[in-house]
Amino acid sequence: MSEQNERYEQVMDLAKRRGFVWPTSEVYGGVAGFIDYGPLGTSLKRRVENVWRQFYVISEGYYEIECPTIGPEAVYQASGHASGFSDKMCQCPHCNEFLRADHIAESYHVQNAGVLSCEELRQIIEGKECPSCMEILENISVFEFNLMFQTSIGPGSQRKGYLRPETAQGIFVDFGRLLRFYRDKLPFGTVQIGKSYRNEISPRQGMIRLREFTQAEAEIFVYPDEKKHPNFTKYAEYSFPLLTYVQQQNNEEAKEYTMRDAVDLGLIANEYVAYYLALTHELLMTIGIQQKRLRFRQHLPNERAHYAQDCWDAEIYSDRFGWVETVGIADRTDYDLRAHATHSGDPFTVFIQYEKPRVTRQRRIIADMGTLGPKYRGKAKAIADALAMANPGPDGATVTIDGEKYDIPSELYEIREEDVTVQGEEVRPHVIEPSYGIDRMIYGLLENTYSVDTIDGEARTVLRLPACVAPIQVAVFPLMSRDELDTIAKTITKELHGRNIHAEYDESGAIGRRYRRQDEIGTPYAITVDYETKENRTVTIRDRDTTSQVRIPIERTSAIIADLISGKISFSEIT
Amino acid sequence: MSEQNERYEQVMDLAKRRGFVWPTSEVYGGVAGFIDYGPLGTSLKRRVENVWRQFYVISEGYYEIECPTIGPEAVYQASGHASGFSDKMCQCPHCNEFLRADHIAESYHVQNAGVLSCEELRQIIEGKECPSCMEILENISVFEFNLMFQTSIGPGSQRKGYLRPETAQGIFVDFGRLLRFYRDKLPFGTVQIGKSYRNEISPRQGMIRLREFTQAEAEIFVYPDEKKHPNFTKYAEYSFPLLTYVQQQNNEEAKEYTMRDAVDLGLIANEYVAYYLALTHELLMTIGIQQKRLRFRQHLPNERAHYAQDCWDAEIYSDRFGWVETVGIADRTDYDLRAHATHSGDPFTVFIQYEKPRVTRQRRIIADMGTLGPKYRGKAKAIADALAMANPGPDGATVTIDGEKYDIPSELYEIREEDVTVQGEEVRPHVIEPSYGIDRMIYGLLENTYSVDTIDGEARTVLRLPACVAPIQVAVFPLMSRDELDTIAKTITKELHGRNIHAEYDESGAIGRRYRRQDEIGTPYAITVDYETKENRTVTIRDRDTTSQVRIPIERTSAIIADLISGKISFSEIT
Repeated sequence: MSEQNERYEQVMDLAKRRGFVWPTSEVYGGVAGFIDYGPLGTSLKRRVENVWRQFYVISEGYYEIECPTIGPEAVYQASGHASGFSDKMCQCPHCNEFLRADHIAESYHVQNAGVLSCEELRQIIEGKECPSCMEILENISVFEFNLMFQTSIGPGSQRKGYLRPETAQGIFVDFGRLLRFYRDKLPFGTVQIGKSYRNEISPRQGMIRLREFTQAEAEIFVYPDEKKHPNFTKYAEYSFPLLTYVQQQNNEEAKEYTMRDAVDLGLIANEYVAYYLALTHELLMTIGIQQKRLRFRQHLPNERAHYAQDCWDAEIYSDRFGWVETVGIADRTDYDLRAHATHSGDPFTVFIQYEKPRVTRQRRIIADMGTLGPKYRGKAKAIADALAMANPGPDGATVTIDGEKYDIPSELYEIREEDVTVQGEEVRPHVIEPSYGIDRMIYGLLENTYSVDTIDGEARTVLRLPACVAPIQVAVFPLMSRDELDTIAKTITKELHGRNIHAEYDESGAIGRRYRRQDEIGTPYAITVDYETKENRTVTIRDRDTTSQVRIPIERTSAIIADLISGKISFSEIT
Repeated sequence: MSEQNERYEQVMDLAKRRGFVWPTSEVYGGVAGFIDYGPLGTSLKRRVENVWRQFYVISEGYYEIECPTIGPEAVYQASGHASGFSDKMCQCPHCNEFLRADHIAESYHVQNAGVLSCEELRQIIEGKECPSCMEILENISVFEFNLMFQTSIGPGSQRKGYLRPETAQGIFVDFGRLLRFYRDKLPFGTVQIGKSYRNEISPRQGMIRLREFTQAEAEIFVYPDEKKHPNFTKYAEYSFPLLTYVQQQNNEEAKEYTMRDAVDLGLIANEYVAYYLALTHELLMTIGIQQKRLRFRQHLPNERAHYAQDCWDAEIYSDRFGWVETVGIADRTDYDLRAHATHSGDPFTVFIQYEKPRVTRQRRIIADMGTLGPKYRGKAKAIADALAMANPGPDGATVTIDGEKYDIPSELYEIREEDVTVQGEEVRPHVIEPSYGIDRMIYGLLENTYSVDTIDGEARTVLRLPACVAPIQVAVFPLMSRDELDTIAKTITKELHGRNIHAEYDESGAIGRRYRRQDEIGTPYAITVDYETKENRTVTIRDRDTTSQVRIPIERTSAIIADLISGKISFSEIT
């Protein structure tokens, strides 16, 4: 086994054994593409989601909404998913396994196979080996498979429904309501964290390719003409390595830029995209991803959606899977709102008032109803309306009513040139979208923070999770489960619970073994109640990463732990 | 319009207008049985879920897990949902509307129509009015409709999948993994908060009957023989009104009992059920449900599932819908684990070690292989195994191998009586389940806390939400958006964000109007920066419910707000 795979096996063994991630419905043989988050995995996931909320909801002020995961067909006809959200698939004639055609092509070193047509893929794959049974793929056909899970709503298969392939559409569809909530002003942002679904053809990559997964998406609605972020100074001088599409085309390495420079040099399309690249970088570092395992890669021109003005992926390096796309940040222009406007008939625009009213000269065509009425009777009103929109020649205008043409002589209407005062205009906002794959962040975190060091000559496994995301925030141990040490430790535990801190009381086994158990699951701090506690009312606090310990007064324990977890103080600052 | 309906309309108007709850996919005409939580609704929902976690995850120590919402068929065959999870339905021959048969019967004052058979319901409904088109229902048939949403997993309709009808099954299926996580000891609890799905026949009750809804369920695994809660003293003296099934049968009112008395009198089956009734009462009061709008009703014998030992509903009173079942608390015995054991072949038991080993006298039947072997050749091993389980007579034993009978004379085996030391036994735990409908809690909260009072002679609408669940925790206003008042107010807002407090800055409109806007959405506190702030560095803090104001030093603002929200101090205690 390669070193990379060995490390992967160690991480996944820890994840299963200690209750981070389990195969789903294991006693019934499991189902590919689904996982269960166990007790520690769920706690880790909640905390990562809450760090995300701290950035987007609390600091940015972008409210969260929650739409159903089942949506009616109309939404996904408008979004394009019903017709276009598919992967190219073939079936092995020998083992009958369904296979992703682009993945087979990529295993034969075809770059960017996802953009090839069915026929191009067929030609590449024909005669190659089936990755499942190793027989030769002969006379195969490659076809599209829609990735949405389908169901029906109500009895009698009355209405087709889809499980959403992304959380974003719910936000787009609610645009009108959201605009009113934000008092009809741009820019504003709205986020959603929740389950999305993709009926993957043959998911084989554990937590990296799931059929049911959690997304955290922000949709930021901005003026189409001026993409200057009002708070850009926050990240203008923030810098990290960028891998632009030009660098990729020239096989160059990523290069560090400040966001201000990257925008000024035209490497990043605008301030909004740059702002969320920087925010994403800060967020991923905050939860515990290392700089050396993180890169920001711009989409290549043929990789980017046709409507997107710019698109970047934050990728986290995995020993097993290589660079894994984890966050996508795109300027989606007005593509989504325009699609829903077309399909629903609602405007999906915002009225932007000019700083001062503008006067424009406009031509108006006014029908002479006194003559039109008697002449065209029931059609007179329709003709008058059509005239208002018509483009008359010197002798008159031609209008079409119910497919029938009418020539209207010029004496039946009047053309007036008028000054019209315009207060503003209806504008369709553009959308900036940072979209996070939470499961991939969790997997990335486990691989990133897993480490083995040597303590007192013994190998120790430790998850170096930051305190803000560690599943158990503090462990509380009585040295012995007698002589009141256990009672004192339980009281401390309860006090920590009162502060909404996840403290775990543990009295079983040797104290060293208890420390190791907590190190392995990333608990940043451990409090031990020993015989000295009874003498001078102090306890020890141990730091996971350094294993150093300090004594603190029992009364200040929960306040100190709260400050350590919130990052107000660091371990070396405890006094 | 009745007063009740008027109040309902007012609450729902507020909920829609201010962004608590919206019709889903409104621009496409909506879909019955689905709702969107808007910005304030989602915030309220998150906080209610987090209060729930404080009770169950932090204080009780029951870890949360997260299983997929899509499950394979095998799980729901075992749980009984694939065959039995259905409602009785009929179709109106005139308007073709699908209708719930029990609901029609209940509208004709049939009690508990849910337990009637299809034929019984048919007889009741025949000749009654269709609630949809008001025509007479004639020659109708009543049939079962399975309420699970169905889909298929993977391409080629390879595998049937269901959207889970409850979160509980994921926990049951993971029992073995969970038992190891909890180091093979009972009791332990596990919780799950997430979406569940029921394809309701004709949902017409807004947030009360949703096709996609959020549950928070706890499954507590306990010794089957001894249902004493280890922490029962916590709630032993806690009391509130109980409506037992006997009281219901006698048309008596609910009566107040302590939990200790209710268990001792046999009104509640055991300490576990009583403990979670009390915890649920405390939890619902904490989020803001009023005692007078809350009751605990025991299921009637014919209403309770056949396997349940006891079952109670916490019901919240709604002006519009009457008493709404919001939480169910049941002793489900070993029904669920037994079902999964039978279907999966896994044991779903826990080994319980006796306090000291028990010695029992056991009879062993040992075959004489030296004689059996040559005589029965290939069958000898099977016969020896069968003999070990046989019940021999004086002349010998009869065993059946592959359907063929063999008479084995007594000289071919030996019967020994032996003392066997037994260390313990495999036991299948019972399950105590408190199951919360989060959407109904949210709806109950909106109705419960909505009120109109008079302030300075003017009617004021106010949501009296407790600070722990209010969507916006504090509003920050500059008296004027100039003279640095806005800068100071923005700095305070940012400092509050740094403490993870949801503060909303608002500078638009008259100050009185800004207070009203926040009152209407339940914001408990408002800070105002005025000209005095610049003189003596103080701000005012206003209490929503009393509208009284006090001045506090600007430096202590965020600490005081944090203490108010966490409940550490009350408004009158600000010094």
